Amino acid sequence: MGFRVGILTVSDKGARDQRVDTSGGAIRELLAGLEAQVECYEVVPDELDVIAGRLRAWADEKRLDLILTSGGTGLSPRDVTPEATLAVVDRLVPGLAEAMRQEGLKQTPMAMLSRAVAGLRGRTLIVNLPGSERAVRHNLAPVLPVLAHALETLRGEAGDHVAMPEEVEKAAPGGAPAS
Amino acid sequence: MGFRVGILTVSDKGARDQRVDTSGGAIRELLAGLEAQVECYEVVPDELDVIAGRLRAWADEKRLDLILTSGGTGLSPRDVTPEATLAVVDRLVPGLAEAMRQEGLKQTPMAMLSRAVAGLRGRTLIVNLPGSERAVRHNLAPVLPVLAHALETLRGEAGDHVAMPEEVEKAAPGGAPAS
Amino acid sequence: MGFRVGILTVSDKGARDQRVDTSGGAIRELLAGLEAQVECYEVVPDELDVIAGRLRAWADEKRLDLILTSGGTGLSPRDVTPEATLAVVDRLVPGLAEAMRQEGLKQTPMAMLSRAVAGLRGRTLIVNLPGSERAVRHNLAPVLPVLAHALETLRGEAGDHVAMPEEVEKAAPGGAPAS
Repeated sequence: MGFRVGILTVSDKGARDQRVDTSGGAIRELLAGLEAQVECYEVVPDELDVIAGRLRAWADEKRLDLILTSGGTGLSPRDVTPEATLAVVDRLVPGLAEAMRQEGLKQTPMAMLSRAVAGLRGRTLIVNLPGSERAVRHNLAPVLPVLAHALETLRGEAGDHVAMPEEVEKAAPGGAPAS
Repeated sequence: MGFRVGILTVSDKGARDQRVDTSGGAIRELLAGLEAQVECYEVVPDELDVIAGRLRAWADEKRLDLILTSGGTGLSPRDVTPEATLAVVDRLVPGLAEAMRQEGLKQTPMAMLSRAVAGLRGRTLIVNLPGSERAVRHNLAPVLPVLAHALETLRGEAGDHVAMPEEVEKAAPGGAPAS
Repeated sequence: MGFRVGILTVSDKGARDQRVDTSGGAIRELLAGLEAQVECYEVVPDELDVIAGRLRAWADEKRLDLILTSGGTGLSPRDVTPEATLAVVDRLVPGLAEAMRQEGLKQTPMAMLSRAVAGLRGRTLIVNLPGSERAVRHNLAPVLPVLAHALETLRGEAGDHVAMPEEVEKAAPGGAPAS
């Protein structure tokens, strides 16, 4: 079974249907390189409680492997996606955010202003991406192979993970390697 | 109107007039490249409460656009400028601190020991710089153009920002672009 | 007197004697380049409370200059060494962790998944290292000279530090320089 992914686009204008979500499309396109299916997709306004609520629900109830947020990582007073993410993760993965900024800096020095964070809520990896389609491509593409490995690590571990019936069935022949 | 800046030099010796604040002078010099006026300047001892108090007052009452601190970012027990900053900011800008360290590392591997942080208190950007004049130059110069853009973003947004009369007047013709 | 160091290997299997601690040996070997003696060494399971307890005891009672942890920095649900470290440090040294990841990235892009942190508890510097011997070598070796300088800074300061008799005696002729 491929990785179960959620895309949460954070944009006041997008949530009011005043802007087309091109970054969400770019994320879908890039994910084609991963064995992944997008199970959840939503556009929400830049409200901390709304963003945090979706992240919690998608991690705890939908039990997604990966949630990619897009937007709300800048310096404007309404940009609170990192704060919503920090409020729900129990463990940080600082190197992912650092690496994405490093990649972004190869394109523009403005990349250092991205406040994106990455972290884990239980077994769900949550990664913030910038809001522009261009920035999404520059940030996400270089770390995709590593993301795949990270998801395999999260899934490969037995521990407290309760396997769903279909997961056991499909994972058996050529499932993700334990690492 | 140019950006309204505060320089807070943190130094026990400086506060007792036992050391001349050359780093503060270096910051002023570098800021000449920005359209900025230094409205607040003070030398305070390495006391967390004192530093945090100045940062709060300069952000909330003076409503500065940018506060640059200098000093207190090392490993000595008295170095607490990052902790004072973390205590007052509501949002972090980790990429700025990362980028300044990266630039510093081009000069000396010791730059990795700078514990500087950067963050926002409301619309005020607070950035820690090291205490030595030399390190200030190596850290601040490369990020200055990005800082200018960051300040424009912070000011350009309408949101909850109450424009001051003179700001409206002067910003009209060629003011900071909304981003 | 050389620096007093503790090596804390974090590994469920290691603590059950199911795996030989090669990373601990690699750390000892690398430390030979520093004037350091390993005063504490232990292998503990991936339990947050156990790890945090050892870090506190080694910092507060043993008054070590440096504690290097190995393992538990990955994404598996049992990997909680960074969280244990964050729970006991009073000041972070983010640049050390960033620099170690940068060095690791020269070897493998997977290095961005290390969640290692570095920080201070009083005068004790605590640095997380990955669990594999190979990664330990790639991460620790490049920052060793800087670590030595950091430890000198921590020790060189008088402040609230109460010198032990033998320390005063041996430090006198060619002790660590105040910085």
